[in-house]
Amino acid sequence: MPLTFDITHRDSESRARVGVITTAHGPVETPVFMPVGTRGSVKSLTPEEVRDAGAQIILGNTYHLYLQPGHELIAQMGGLHRFMGWQGPILTDSGGFQVFSLIYGGIADEVKGRRPSQHAQLKPGMVKVTENGVIFRSYIDGSKHLFTPERSIEIQKGIGADIILCFDELPPFRAGYDYTARSLERTHRWEARCLAFHRQTLGGANLSFAAPNHDQSLFGIVHGGVFENLRRASAEYIGGLGFDGLCIGGSLGKDKQQINEVVDMTVPHMPDALPRHLLGIGDVDDLLEGVARGIDMFDCVSPTRLGRHGAALVRDANRKWRLNVQNASLRNDPGPLDAQCRCYTCRTYSRAYIHHLFRAQELLGIRLLSLHNVEFLCALMQEVRASIRVGRFTELRRTWLSRP
Amino acid sequence: MPLTFDITHRDSESRARVGVITTAHGPVETPVFMPVGTRGSVKSLTPEEVRDAGAQIILGNTYHLYLQPGHELIAQMGGLHRFMGWQGPILTDSGGFQVFSLIYGGIADEVKGRRPSQHAQLKPGMVKVTENGVIFRSYIDGSKHLFTPERSIEIQKGIGADIILCFDELPPFRAGYDYTARSLERTHRWEARCLAFHRQTLGGANLSFAAPNHDQSLFGIVHGGVFENLRRASAEYIGGLGFDGLCIGGSLGKDKQQINEVVDMTVPHMPDALPRHLLGIGDVDDLLEGVARGIDMFDCVSPTRLGRHGAALVRDANRKWRLNVQNASLRNDPGPLDAQCRCYTCRTYSRAYIHHLFRAQELLGIRLLSLHNVEFLCALMQEVRASIRVGRFTELRRTWLSRP
Repeated sequence: MPLTFDITHRDSESRARVGVITTAHGPVETPVFMPVGTRGSVKSLTPEEVRDAGAQIILGNTYHLYLQPGHELIAQMGGLHRFMGWQGPILTDSGGFQVFSLIYGGIADEVKGRRPSQHAQLKPGMVKVTENGVIFRSYIDGSKHLFTPERSIEIQKGIGADIILCFDELPPFRAGYDYTARSLERTHRWEARCLAFHRQTLGGANLSFAAPNHDQSLFGIVHGGVFENLRRASAEYIGGLGFDGLCIGGSLGKDKQQINEVVDMTVPHMPDALPRHLLGIGDVDDLLEGVARGIDMFDCVSPTRLGRHGAALVRDANRKWRLNVQNASLRNDPGPLDAQCRCYTCRTYSRAYIHHLFRAQELLGIRLLSLHNVEFLCALMQEVRASIRVGRFTELRRTWLSRP
Repeated sequence: MPLTFDITHRDSESRARVGVITTAHGPVETPVFMPVGTRGSVKSLTPEEVRDAGAQIILGNTYHLYLQPGHELIAQMGGLHRFMGWQGPILTDSGGFQVFSLIYGGIADEVKGRRPSQHAQLKPGMVKVTENGVIFRSYIDGSKHLFTPERSIEIQKGIGADIILCFDELPPFRAGYDYTARSLERTHRWEARCLAFHRQTLGGANLSFAAPNHDQSLFGIVHGGVFENLRRASAEYIGGLGFDGLCIGGSLGKDKQQINEVVDMTVPHMPDALPRHLLGIGDVDDLLEGVARGIDMFDCVSPTRLGRHGAALVRDANRKWRLNVQNASLRNDPGPLDAQCRCYTCRTYSRAYIHHLFRAQELLGIRLLSLHNVEFLCALMQEVRASIRVGRFTELRRTWLSRP
């Protein structure tokens, strides 16, 4: 059975809503932030730690898992849940984001419009995009591989996540209207092929391996860059195909304000009854603004990436919610990273100790900070849900975003 | 109060014995293996994990902790126990081993005689050894520092371990009889100075900072290289000074057989009533042979170092108890690292998953392997203690060491 989604509360002052997604691996209360376990591991953390930090669902990357260890091996090992020891729900992306990242260079910045990419041109030697799909080279050994819509779904059936995503093209922010419009047409055709193949392979039918999860749900992805008419057309077309949920993907603009504008121009045209996932976004302000605009699901590598680089999330909008633990001022600071945080790190260790661990390049420092950051964002979303339930979301949003 | 040591069982076929060391931070059943937390962290693991893996006591390195974050900061933070969150007993070395490692090059191999060092000469530009102590340069920033016997004890009082060690010189294996004999005389004078200073500063008296632990015990170190008359003289002299326990230090010979010979020539001249610590030794066979020769305490970085390098300890003497988890044969192996191990890693994950984590260079792999290796050696020592109690140590030793 695919997932069900029940909306239980709505905010009267915004599009924010609270709901429950029910999957075969358990429920997910929304709005939800999901940590990313790119290669079958939320970096440096055990599944129990991720769960105890409040994570309800995690994201795995199809591109990485396909290349290493391979979806057939994962299927042979009983699927990703069993392979990595995470018993809760999992979502996998389609591999499209990473494949097109190879084409355009640093796509994470490019699709978010953060900076002009010097590589925003196709590199024909590296990859080739046709109506059928994309040929790309492995980042590990340079070997050639083909992703098509059908192949992406097949791989995701081997991995066995509860929610899988359609294969899409990610045109760069700088691509302009004409390219984005043409790309959108092809992405729409690809998504329809994904849905058809998903239906042909339901329950593991027509696959060359034993599919570990017969209860997968397929999400479509709304594209259209920063262009209102394209976003609307995409939301209406993809929203009408019969997916179990929808993502907002592709270029979200050049800055945080434009991200909000893109979400604002898209959400009203998406079916109300389906869960909505804003792909790859995870700053504190982005989460709050996204929820206000009707987003139910978020994922981002930021909590673990920040953790590896020595940044702790803290309740301080003036610092953009980040504290560099290597700051000399923390050297003899006996307090916790964040005074209100209830995570293991904050309950157990001083800023001085974490400062020391990073200065000494001890791996434990990365763990403690990653754990704190994951719990920080999960706790934020828990606060968000609680505030929507009691009609105080606007107040909560203002408190978090205010810079006294 | 210093520690007490009660011997509860003796093996009839060897010098093996079982006892309990009681410290202000709890008891330690011996023979014991202690993991090493060089910089205030048993690498990649939390204190709770180290405890749950069966570790009763851990070792911290004075040299590293003095340079970063500094013993005064640790004292200000309430001592190492509180700073790092380890509530059990701690032992610190004196810093001598690392300081002389700078002088002689890779002293870990040199003092164990594993290979001739090309640097087995004093490097006068780097360091200077006088009757007073040693001037050395920081490995972090090249700054100059002086360790004397008194300074080493003072630093260890700031760190606040339950068991602290005398400052000693570590002449290289290749030093020969004459140098070793002269060095031994000076080390004996240094150890007497350590004991005197320890007594002057009991309960934190005469220190410039608030000592976090008023219940420290001081161990002497028996030297003499591979020379029987020097080892005997050292055991008798150091054994008579009134220390709370004794270590066997310095060069232990050129191979495992010579280590055993050095222990055999030393232990009979050490007081029976004091705990005996064989410094820096931790291979499976070394532990079993050491116990048979009357050793009560062991420490080694091997479980965490092996873990970082992708080696799992396993019950297989033919493999020298090591399994390279990156072996291609593990790629789709659904079994645990070691079938008899009860650690979290072996209870939860397949060899295939751990193989994948190392291939993908995921930090979690280092954690899982370090945890397994620490528990493996702690469980071995638990088996050793149980076998001695019931008169079956010889049988256990034979089982572990046999190569079918």
